Amino acid sequence: CLKKDVGQMKLQDPNFRPGLVVLQVSVECITEVNENSSFHGLIVQLPLDSIHKIDTEKVTNAVAPEKDVDGLTSINAGKLSRGDLGDCFIPCTPNGCMELIRQTGKPTAINTPTHPLRKKTNSCAVRWELIDGLCTSHVYRCVGGGEESVLSAKRFLDSHKSGNWNISYTKLNLQKPVPSDIAISRSCVPKPIDRLAREVGLLSDEVELYGKTKAKVQLNIIKRLQAQPDGKYVVVTGITPTPLGEGKSTTTIGLVQALGAHMKLNVFACVRQPSQGPTFGIKGGAAGGGYSQVIPMEEFNLHLTGDIHAITAANNLVAAAIDARMFHEATQSDKALYNRLVPLSGGQRTFSPIQINRLKKLGIEKTDPSTLTEEEITRFARLDIEPSSVTWQRVLDTNDRFLRKITIGQSPTEKGHTREAQFDITVASEIMAVLALTSSLEDMRQRLAKMVVATSRSGEPITTEDLGVSGALTVLMRDAIKPNLMQTLEGNPVFVHAGPFANIAHGNSSILADKIALKLVGPEGFVVTEAGFGADIGMEKFFNIKCRYSGLRPHVVVLVATVRALKMHGGGPTVTAGMPLPKEYIEENLELLEKGCSNMRKQIENAQHFGVPVVVAVNGFKTDTEAELDLVCSMAKAAGAFDAVRCSHWAEGGAGAVALGQAVQRASEAPSNFKFLYDLELPIADKIRIIGQKIYGADDIELLPEAQRKVELYTKQGFGNLPICMAKTHLSLSHEADKKGVPTGFVLPIRDIRASVGSGFLFPLVGTMPTIPGLPTRPCFYDIDLDPETEQVNGLF
Amino acid sequence: CLKKDVGQMKLQDPNFRPGLVVLQVSVECITEVNENSSFHGLIVQLPLDSIHKIDTEKVTNAVAPEKDVDGLTSINAGKLSRGDLGDCFIPCTPNGCMELIRQTGKPTAINTPTHPLRKKTNSCAVRWELIDGLCTSHVYRCVGGGEESVLSAKRFLDSHKSGNWNISYTKLNLQKPVPSDIAISRSCVPKPIDRLAREVGLLSDEVELYGKTKAKVQLNIIKRLQAQPDGKYVVVTGITPTPLGEGKSTTTIGLVQALGAHMKLNVFACVRQPSQGPTFGIKGGAAGGGYSQVIPMEEFNLHLTGDIHAITAANNLVAAAIDARMFHEATQSDKALYNRLVPLSGGQRTFSPIQINRLKKLGIEKTDPSTLTEEEITRFARLDIEPSSVTWQRVLDTNDRFLRKITIGQSPTEKGHTREAQFDITVASEIMAVLALTSSLEDMRQRLAKMVVATSRSGEPITTEDLGVSGALTVLMRDAIKPNLMQTLEGNPVFVHAGPFANIAHGNSSILADKIALKLVGPEGFVVTEAGFGADIGMEKFFNIKCRYSGLRPHVVVLVATVRALKMHGGGPTVTAGMPLPKEYIEENLELLEKGCSNMRKQIENAQHFGVPVVVAVNGFKTDTEAELDLVCSMAKAAGAFDAVRCSHWAEGGAGAVALGQAVQRASEAPSNFKFLYDLELPIADKIRIIGQKIYGADDIELLPEAQRKVELYTKQGFGNLPICMAKTHLSLSHEADKKGVPTGFVLPIRDIRASVGSGFLFPLVGTMPTIPGLPTRPCFYDIDLDPETEQVNGLF
Repeated sequence: CLKKDVGQMKLQDPNFRPGLVVLQVSVECITEVNENSSFHGLIVQLPLDSIHKIDTEKVTNAVAPEKDVDGLTSINAGKLSRGDLGDCFIPCTPNGCMELIRQTGKPTAINTPTHPLRKKTNSCAVRWELIDGLCTSHVYRCVGGGEESVLSAKRFLDSHKSGNWNISYTKLNLQKPVPSDIAISRSCVPKPIDRLAREVGLLSDEVELYGKTKAKVQLNIIKRLQAQPDGKYVVVTGITPTPLGEGKSTTTIGLVQALGAHMKLNVFACVRQPSQGPTFGIKGGAAGGGYSQVIPMEEFNLHLTGDIHAITAANNLVAAAIDARMFHEATQSDKALYNRLVPLSGGQRTFSPIQINRLKKLGIEKTDPSTLTEEEITRFARLDIEPSSVTWQRVLDTNDRFLRKITIGQSPTEKGHTREAQFDITVASEIMAVLALTSSLEDMRQRLAKMVVATSRSGEPITTEDLGVSGALTVLMRDAIKPNLMQTLEGNPVFVHAGPFANIAHGNSSILADKIALKLVGPEGFVVTEAGFGADIGMEKFFNIKCRYSGLRPHVVVLVATVRALKMHGGGPTVTAGMPLPKEYIEENLELLEKGCSNMRKQIENAQHFGVPVVVAVNGFKTDTEAELDLVCSMAKAAGAFDAVRCSHWAEGGAGAVALGQAVQRASEAPSNFKFLYDLELPIADKIRIIGQKIYGADDIELLPEAQRKVELYTKQGFGNLPICMAKTHLSLSHEADKKGVPTGFVLPIRDIRASVGSGFLFPLVGTMPTIPGLPTRPCFYDIDLDPETEQVNGLF
Repeated sequence: CLKKDVGQMKLQDPNFRPGLVVLQVSVECITEVNENSSFHGLIVQLPLDSIHKIDTEKVTNAVAPEKDVDGLTSINAGKLSRGDLGDCFIPCTPNGCMELIRQTGKPTAINTPTHPLRKKTNSCAVRWELIDGLCTSHVYRCVGGGEESVLSAKRFLDSHKSGNWNISYTKLNLQKPVPSDIAISRSCVPKPIDRLAREVGLLSDEVELYGKTKAKVQLNIIKRLQAQPDGKYVVVTGITPTPLGEGKSTTTIGLVQALGAHMKLNVFACVRQPSQGPTFGIKGGAAGGGYSQVIPMEEFNLHLTGDIHAITAANNLVAAAIDARMFHEATQSDKALYNRLVPLSGGQRTFSPIQINRLKKLGIEKTDPSTLTEEEITRFARLDIEPSSVTWQRVLDTNDRFLRKITIGQSPTEKGHTREAQFDITVASEIMAVLALTSSLEDMRQRLAKMVVATSRSGEPITTEDLGVSGALTVLMRDAIKPNLMQTLEGNPVFVHAGPFANIAHGNSSILADKIALKLVGPEGFVVTEAGFGADIGMEKFFNIKCRYSGLRPHVVVLVATVRALKMHGGGPTVTAGMPLPKEYIEENLELLEKGCSNMRKQIENAQHFGVPVVVAVNGFKTDTEAELDLVCSMAKAAGAFDAVRCSHWAEGGAGAVALGQAVQRASEAPSNFKFLYDLELPIADKIRIIGQKIYGADDIELLPEAQRKVELYTKQGFGNLPICMAKTHLSLSHEADKKGVPTGFVLPIRDIRASVGSGFLFPLVGTMPTIPGLPTRPCFYDIDLDPETEQVNGLF
C-alpha cells in the first residue's frame, strides 16, 4: 500500500470503498508505515460520515507514537465525536493544514474536520517526506480534500527550499568613540532566536531553543537538504600576528554583516566557541569586537549551550576509567577481574556489545563468556597499560596553573599507586578535535572509540573502546554535536561550534556547522568560516585536515593584515600585551611597513599553494594613515592577491566592510583550482618536511630521537597515513617566536610526535606547548560582576 | 502623566486632543515610562487618521528598546503606512490583543490597526503590569478601543491567576512485568515543555526553553505572584534505609502523579538534580523508578541544563584564584603586588568595586589608590593565606578516585610551591549548597561573596570577596539559579533544582523551586519536596536549615518505609548492593518485622519533634505479604502517625498512590504546630548535643580536640550562630553504620567541624566522609551507548 506516490495517485482507486471497509485498509497501511523507517510521520483523515459508525480508537491506537505527528493519542483516548474536538483538530482547509506544518515543522495530520468543505472528503492517509526540501507524497485511498492538501503541501515546501530567506536586519546606532564591546552588545536587542531560525529556512522542529538567544540545530537537517547545492565557502585567515591579534574574528563578523545586511546576500558566519578559562584570566571575550560582534557576547563567552562542559565530563570520564582500570588490574587476579568484568546475573554471564568489540580486536571470535580459555581470559581482562605511556590527560576549562603537573593517587584508598599527571585546558582535549572534525553521530561514535589513550606493555595501542567507555562518551556528547545558532549585531545568523586548540589541534570550527550553513544559504549565498592563528598554521590545517575530512572546497581566502603587524615584521619594536605601543606603530612609517609586507607576501603565496584566490583585508586602525593603507593594498596586489581592500567594520559594522564583501563576491566567481599540499600516503617525515619547507620556508626538518621513535611506533601501529597537525608558535613563520618577517635559513626541529587517532591526525611538537594557562596577579574577574536588579553582566570585554 | 490607573481612567480627559498635539503628549509619557523601572513595557496605539499626518518615527524611536514589548523598532524603521504593515501589526480587537499577550506572556502593543473598528480609536498609550497576577493598568489619552483592550486584558489576567490550571495528563500503558526504567521513560512521549509551562500558569516570557523537554523558569515570577497564597507543603523522607535505598524519589513522584493525574489537584514535585558521576559508576539513574519517574530520564540524569557544570566552573575558578594568589604573593614584593592589583590605566590607578569592598572590610575608608599608606598597601595586597588552612577544594562531576589526594604545583613554572590538595565531587561544593539555599540573585551574590576559603596567618577568615572573584562567580551562576522544569510520566510538572550532598551539606533541593511551585499550585494545591537520606538527617536539615532560611512551614511529613528495611532493623542479615537478598527478606517474617518497626517509631517521633503530622507510606515490594504490610501500617498508627498506607506506584504509577494522596490531603488539613529543634543563639556544642540526643538518641556528644578548636575559632570569627549540618552516616541513627534499629547508650564523637559560611551552616564531622566516589572494576558505562540511527540512549537504568 506504500507504492503509490503523487504521480501515481489514483483518486478513484478501485479498492476504495467508503466507511468501515476503507478504515480496515487504512489500519494495514498504518502498520506498514509504522515499521518503515523512511516514513517520518502519518496523517490520518477520517470521513466525517464515519465518526459515529467506526471504531476510531482502532485507528488512533494503530499509529506508533513516533509516527504520530499530530498527537493523535491526546485526543481523549481516541474517542471522536462531532462535539468533542480537541485542540489538535484544525479545520482541514489546505491553509489550516499548512499552518500546522508551519508550526510543527513536519508533515502533520488533519483529523476529522468540522469545516463544511471536509464533508466531501473520505478516508485517506497522507504522508509527506521533507527530503531535499521537496514534498514527496504518498497518498492512500484519497479523495477530495486529500488532494488539495497534497498540492498545498507541495506549494509550502517549494516556498521553503533552502536559500529562500526572508530575513530582517538590525540597524546599528553607531556611536563615536566606539563604546566597549559589552556596552555595544547590550545596546542591541537580539532578534528572538526562533525567529532568526525561521528567517533562514530552518523548520521549527529542527531547532532546539536554549533560552531566547541561542538554539541548537538538529543534524537531521543534513538529510533534508542533502540534494541542495552548496553556497560559496570563504575562509578567513591572517598574516603572522602580534601578540595582540589582528582582528580575524572581527573581520569574519564584519564581512558577514556586510554581505548580509548591506549586500542582501544570504550569509552565515561559522566561528569557534572560546574557552571560558581565559575569559576570567587576561583575554576577555572572543565574540569579535566593536560593531562587528556575535551577541549576546556574555552568552557567547560563558557556558554557551554547555558543549565545552560536555567535553570536560567526557574527557575526565576517560581519565578516571584509565586510572581505575590500572588500579583494579594491579590489585586483582585474572580470574577475579574477569568475574567482575563479566558478572553473573540471573545465573548467567554475558558480554556487553562493547566487550565483544574488544574480543574481536583480540581476534577472539567468541560470544559465550564460559568458553574462553585461560589465556583468552587474561588477554581480555588485562589491558596491561604501561603507566608511563598514558597520553590522556584530565581537563578543566579554567586557567589553573597549579594543575600543570600533579601527582595523583595519594589517598590510602589507592594503595600507593601514585602517578604523575597533568590537567590541560578543555579545548585541548582530543574530544574537542573530534567534535570539530566529525561528520555525523555515527562517525563521532567511531572516532570517540578509536581514541588511543596509552600503549600496553606489549606495544599495542589502548583505545577508549578497550576501556569500555566509548558508548558513554557518545551519550555525553549527543547534544554537543548539534551546532549552536546565534546572531551578529546586525542580525545575521552565526554558527558557534567547537573550538579546538590551534597548536596541538587544528584550530578550526566544526565541519558540521559549515556543511549545514552551506546548504542553508543556497547556491548564491556565502559561508564565512575562520581559521585560528596565521595562515601558516590555521589555514594550512583548514585545507589539509578540515577540508580533507569534510570534502568541502573553499572558493576564497580572506587574509587579514594590519599596518601594526606588518611594521613589526619590518623590524618594529616588540609589541607586548598590556604595554603602550611604541611610537613606530602610532606614527606613519612607510619604510618599516614596506619591509614588513614580506610576511604578507609569503602568506599570500601560502594560500596560493592550495589554488584558491586570496583577498587581503586591511583591518584599519585609527592611527593608520592613508598612505600606509594604500601601500599595503598595492603591495598585496603586487604579491598576487586577487584584490586588497581597506575595511573599518570595527568602528562601522557591516557598512565598513562592503568593499571587502564585494571583492569576496568577485573572487568567488574567479577560477579556482584547489589542491592539497601533500599526499596522505607519503611517509610521516616527508609530510612534515613539505609543510616545513613550503609553508614555513625552512631549509629542512630535523627529527629529534623521541620524534624518530614515534615515527616508527605510529607507522607500525598503522597511523602513518594520517594528516599532520603542526604544533608550532603562531608568532613567527619559523619555530622561534621572535623571528619576524620571513625567516630563512633554518632547520625545523621536531621534538616529539603525538597521535590524535580519533580526531585523525598526528601532531609533531616544535618546542614546548603550554596546554593550560594561568591566572595573572590581577585577573579579569576583578571587574566582572552581575547587577542583581537588571541581571546584566558588567566588566566583560 | 503616570498617575492615572484604571479606576481613575478618564476617557474624556480634558487634555485630550486628536492628532499631532496628543502625540507630543504621548512622547513625554513614553520618556517617563522609559526611565521608570517599575514599568515593564509600553503599548503605543496610534490613531488611524494620524498615519499620514504625524511623525510616527518620533514615537517609535522614543520607546527604549527594553520597554518596547512588541518590537516597534522592527517596523521598517518606524515608517508606517496603510499598505506597509509588518507582521507585528495585528488588528486591534480585544481578542487580537489578548492573543499577543498569550504569545509573548507580557503586555504588548497594538499599533496602527487595519481593522475597521479601530477607526474610532484615537491616540493612547497603555501599560499593564503583571504584578500579583492582576492587571494594573495605566492608561493615557485613551478612548474607544483602548478601553476595550484594558478590560479584555483584565479578563485575561484574571483567568491567569495562579492556581487556575488547565492541565492534561498522560495516560500510562502499564506493562507486567515492569520494564526497565529507561524503557518506560522512552515509551512515554513527553508533552512539549512549553505546553506544560502554559498549563500550570507560567507566562511564556517567564520560561526559557532548553530543547523540547526542559525549561528554566525566570525568577521574576516571584515578583508577579508575591501576593498569591501558598499551596500545601509536603516533605518526603524515610526511615533509616538499607544500602539499596527505600524508594523516596519514586514515592515523591508517585504521590505527585496520584494527587495530580488521579485526584485532579494542582501539584508540583520538587526534586534534586543528581550527580552525573555515579550515573557512570554503580548507581545508575535517579529520576524515580518504574511507573513513577521524571522524564526523559536520560535528560534528567545527564547535563540537564548545565547547572552542575556551572558549579564546577565557578568552584574551580575559586580554587585557581587561591593558588595563583598564594603564588603571586610568594614571588612578589608588596609594591609590585599593589602595582599589579591596581594597575595604571590611562595614567591613573583605580580600585574596582570589589577591591573597595576589601578595603572596607580592612577598615580602610579610602577610594583613591594613591593615598594608601605603606602599611595599608601591605594589608590590602597581601591576603597572607596560611597554606595548610585552605579548606576550598577543586571539584569534578566524575567518579575519579585518583583525585582523592593529590599534590599540585609540581611544574617548574610554579617554582616549587607545591601543596597537597584534593578533588571532591561537584555536588559537594559549597556553591551547590548556596544554590539550594539562596532566595534571590542578590542573596546569591552575597552568599557567594561570604564563602570562607582559608584563614590568614593572623587568623582572619579569607573570603571569595577578598580574592576578588565573587562577582565572576555570580555571573557564572546566573542561569543556574533558575529552576528547571520537567515532567512526570503522567504529565505533572516537576522542578529539578540543586542537589547538594546530604552529608557534608544539607541534601535538599532548592528553596527557590519550592517557593515558585507553592505560588503556582495555588492555595488548594500541593508541593511535594524530597529530603535526602533518612529522617534523622535529610528531614532534620530540611526543617532546621532549609525551612529556617526559606521561612516556609511544611504541612505534612511523608515517611517512606519498606518491609525490607524494617526487617533489617529487626536483626535481619546484612543487605549488600549487587548481592542476592537473604531469604528473610523474601519470605514472610512478622517477628523480625515487628522488632524492626522500632526504627520507624523513632523516625515518626523525630518528625513529631517539629510539630508536623506524619503519614507513613509503605512502599510495597512484590515479595511483601498482606500480613506484613498490614503490620507495618498498624504499628505506624500506633506510633502516632496521622495515617499509614500501602502504595504500589512503582508498578502502577499514580494509581498506586491514590490512598497515600488522600491521606496526605487529610493530614494537610490537620492542626500543625511547627517549631524548630534548637535556637540559633545557643552555643555550637549545645546545638550539636540537642540533635545528637533528641534525633539520634545519643546519651551525649564528645568534641574531639580538633572540633573543640574549631568551636573556639568559629565562635571567635562570628560564625557561632549558624545552624548545624551534621555529617553522619545515613545507614544508622547512630554514627556507626552497622548499628541498626534504634541504637542507645552511645556517645556521639565529633571529629572536626567545618564552616560553609556562604551557604550558612557549620558541619560537624562524625567520622570520615568520602567526598568523591570511585569507579568499580566494571562501571555502568559498559552498558551505556547511543543508537546513532534513532539517537536513543541505551543502558541507563
